[in-house]
Amino acid sequence: MKGAEGLLATAIEAGVRVCFANPGTTEMPLVEAFDAVPGIRTVLGLSEGVVTGAADGYTRMAGVPAMTLLHLGPGFANGIANLHNARRARTPVINVVGEHATWHQPADAPLASDIESLAAPVSGWVGRTTSARSAGAEFVEARQAALRDRLPATLIAAADHMWSEGGTTADVPPAPGPAEVEQEQVDAVAKVLASGERPALLLGGNALSADGIRTAARIAAAVGGEVLAERSPARIERGPDVPPLRSLPYFPEDVLGSLDGFSHLVLVGTTEPVAFFGYEGMPSVLVPDGTQLHTLADPGQDAAAALDALAEATGSADARPPAPQRPEVRAPQGDLTSSAIAAAIVLTQPEGAIVVNEGVSSSGAYPGLAAAAPRHTEITLTGGAIGMGIPAATGAAVACPDRHVIDFQADGSALYTVQGLWTQARQRLDVTTVICSNSRYRILEAELSRAGVDRPGPAAAGMTALGDPAPDWTALAAGFGVPAVRATTGEQLLDALRQASLEPGPHLVEAVI
Amino acid sequence: MKGAEGLLATAIEAGVRVCFANPGTTEMPLVEAFDAVPGIRTVLGLSEGVVTGAADGYTRMAGVPAMTLLHLGPGFANGIANLHNARRARTPVINVVGEHATWHQPADAPLASDIESLAAPVSGWVGRTTSARSAGAEFVEARQAALRDRLPATLIAAADHMWSEGGTTADVPPAPGPAEVEQEQVDAVAKVLASGERPALLLGGNALSADGIRTAARIAAAVGGEVLAERSPARIERGPDVPPLRSLPYFPEDVLGSLDGFSHLVLVGTTEPVAFFGYEGMPSVLVPDGTQLHTLADPGQDAAAALDALAEATGSADARPPAPQRPEVRAPQGDLTSSAIAAAIVLTQPEGAIVVNEGVSSSGAYPGLAAAAPRHTEITLTGGAIGMGIPAATGAAVACPDRHVIDFQADGSALYTVQGLWTQARQRLDVTTVICSNSRYRILEAELSRAGVDRPGPAAAGMTALGDPAPDWTALAAGFGVPAVRATTGEQLLDALRQASLEPGPHLVEAVI
Repeated sequence: MKGAEGLLATAIEAGVRVCFANPGTTEMPLVEAFDAVPGIRTVLGLSEGVVTGAADGYTRMAGVPAMTLLHLGPGFANGIANLHNARRARTPVINVVGEHATWHQPADAPLASDIESLAAPVSGWVGRTTSARSAGAEFVEARQAALRDRLPATLIAAADHMWSEGGTTADVPPAPGPAEVEQEQVDAVAKVLASGERPALLLGGNALSADGIRTAARIAAAVGGEVLAERSPARIERGPDVPPLRSLPYFPEDVLGSLDGFSHLVLVGTTEPVAFFGYEGMPSVLVPDGTQLHTLADPGQDAAAALDALAEATGSADARPPAPQRPEVRAPQGDLTSSAIAAAIVLTQPEGAIVVNEGVSSSGAYPGLAAAAPRHTEITLTGGAIGMGIPAATGAAVACPDRHVIDFQADGSALYTVQGLWTQARQRLDVTTVICSNSRYRILEAELSRAGVDRPGPAAAGMTALGDPAPDWTALAAGFGVPAVRATTGEQLLDALRQASLEPGPHLVEAVI
Repeated sequence: MKGAEGLLATAIEAGVRVCFANPGTTEMPLVEAFDAVPGIRTVLGLSEGVVTGAADGYTRMAGVPAMTLLHLGPGFANGIANLHNARRARTPVINVVGEHATWHQPADAPLASDIESLAAPVSGWVGRTTSARSAGAEFVEARQAALRDRLPATLIAAADHMWSEGGTTADVPPAPGPAEVEQEQVDAVAKVLASGERPALLLGGNALSADGIRTAARIAAAVGGEVLAERSPARIERGPDVPPLRSLPYFPEDVLGSLDGFSHLVLVGTTEPVAFFGYEGMPSVLVPDGTQLHTLADPGQDAAAALDALAEATGSADARPPAPQRPEVRAPQGDLTSSAIAAAIVLTQPEGAIVVNEGVSSSGAYPGLAAAAPRHTEITLTGGAIGMGIPAATGAAVACPDRHVIDFQADGSALYTVQGLWTQARQRLDVTTVICSNSRYRILEAELSRAGVDRPGPAAAGMTALGDPAPDWTALAAGFGVPAVRATTGEQLLDALRQASLEPGPHLVEAVI
């Protein structure tokens, strides 16, 4: 057995079922091994941003790590931005990066570079294979680290270790789960909640599962508090059987407004809210004066289990939250706005959809309307590195072939990784990409306006607008093999989304704002 | 004056005229400053691979550094692959990367990451601004380092330093040129050449200017040797008034074959030839046994000046190389092959064209035919990080508005940075992109075949083929605003290329192999 075969046989033992890939020459022994040791589905992306974003989306939905296969430092580098998002989402992706044969590394061949330096900022663990024999065990090390730390792990695999005989299937220990929260911590928070002072529970991580949200809502009902969701969760469940909850907004003054009036802010699987960017005169940490901060569970800990323990400690297991008010969503008519697009998505999504939200400036209305939609999962842009939506939707669809995936997608962000549409076409994935087409980086115009620039000069206008020429989304989609239509009114958009959800395979709808 | 304005005023002082950019919120003070302190043309790219590749292409052709403006770690990361190529080309690009306000950095906001760790592998110099006042001087430090080391330099600019008052225009010292070669070194090589044993002069860097090649050819004629070009030069001049020279090929056995029979190999602005990848049973360093290696000039040194000195030291200033045999190139007819495409480009390029060569497996024939073309400059994929062609052609066209740019482009590589077509459309650049459309990563099939895999299994076939669906290049080009045609025969291709060279603005020709 070759080293590459031992590595893949071990990966299969470890439960890996999908590898998103864009390999080159140094990875050819691994490419061959996927045929020699079948059991892992390989999915090609036309650039590595697609590969790593798809691995993130897959892993968030599948719950087991996807593997990526990337080509040396430059190939890895192209995937860093979406690994940054995966890191912020605490997604345990396992990257395998090919490297020159060990004896060829001193030659400093053209593609050589410092892979560790590139990998460290987005990986909880970085390591190298040391022989054909040990490559399987080294894959296990990467996998254990990824699952233990809930972070991407990166294994650099030398070509000669991969092509040499002597590979072995390594023993795979049980998958480490998230760290458990101590009872002491639970009791301390329970004591705070018993004070009668109004608390907010801020949920992130697996606290945003349906059960986690329900449990949190019962606790809040029992102690007279409110449940909130962190701003950009890796994954959140919504639907008629899930209590609706407010999400923290984007701008710092709005976050402070959302948290106004709470005496206590309890972090449940998330970190203290901080400003997305620093603004003159605004604080970095967005906790109002007079609000005390408490941690029930860190992002690396089992927040859902901690909520169960807290429900018990607060005696709220049988509390009944009041029946929530759900928003009324009207069918959009006439010219499109960003909230009209959000409404159209809420009104047309089938039961059990996955909504990937990279709407940026266009999707602000969605969390407020989504409680009116059928049961669904929303996954969002955790790290702010744009170009995540099309890839993540691709990976989510590979993970959940029975669920319809809707990518609520800003146009500027979509252009970063538009190549991902091709993978959707090749894999016949049931994804509808809804492009919010305003032909500008609207969020940057908003930021300029906050800075007092309401009429940008020609240079600033040229760097925030996407017109002249406006990208033709139906042509781009067709170029990658995805059927597409253009909608300019609410009526057309509703029709297009209903149609797309009925026909199998990928679709793109350009919603012109 | 704000810090950002001081930085830009200094950049203008330093001769910077173009900034390729994809900014975000942290860069908004710089975006505003381009209007407040006019003098630098800003060119937006829809992803950072376009931005850095264009900066590389511009700087190779303009001879003065382009600036880039990139958004935090993830934005920089998207540009690393093409900065890797710039590093291998010894291109002094100056990157300015926005960073969170200094007081906001401890908050570890979503987009925060270790920018230094990302930048170091592709930068000769990495630094940070330390205040609004010093930002101009820190830009000068970056610029001096870039020009001294002939490598990209990266300045990380904190948002508060950029938006604060107190900026100043820093003094700009003269631009450092490449290091000079010592006369001792020249004399040592002259002594070797006087031995009467057959030498090869292997040229890289500025030795591949028209004058450098002519001087090298005179020396070779005087001492009975041959002049060769390194495999993938940053820039090489060709034409009727430039002696033609062989280029080192790609595969190691072919390189060894090219160098067979030389007693001495003299490196002139390049490094010893090494294998692009390590192969079992093949050496890393590709110098035949019995060939002695000598260095006239390192890649960082002034190789052209060293050749002048060597011509004098060897008394070959007035030597006349024999009139070279130039290839006869026939007009391609019928079905297209990769050499038919090379021939069509040779036969239709106007005087003074710039040929960007990212043909990968399709452009192997070009260097052998190019001596029949009118005077032109070829720029190539130096670092092997694919996705350089469309961006570099964009940058070259910005640098040289009076020259026609032809991008000889492999399809798989083009898909990495296809977004660059939009910048060509927006800037009305005179670029013709010739897509060698074989719908596969042909080079990987060749590598599999070298490894003995002639019939790849389904996994390997799926990761090396780009069909199912084949990208529709005319649709993709139209989506980005570039008119496009499809050619399936030599006759059609010749027509399409002639037409494209006559009409201003960008064009794309899909040459179906």
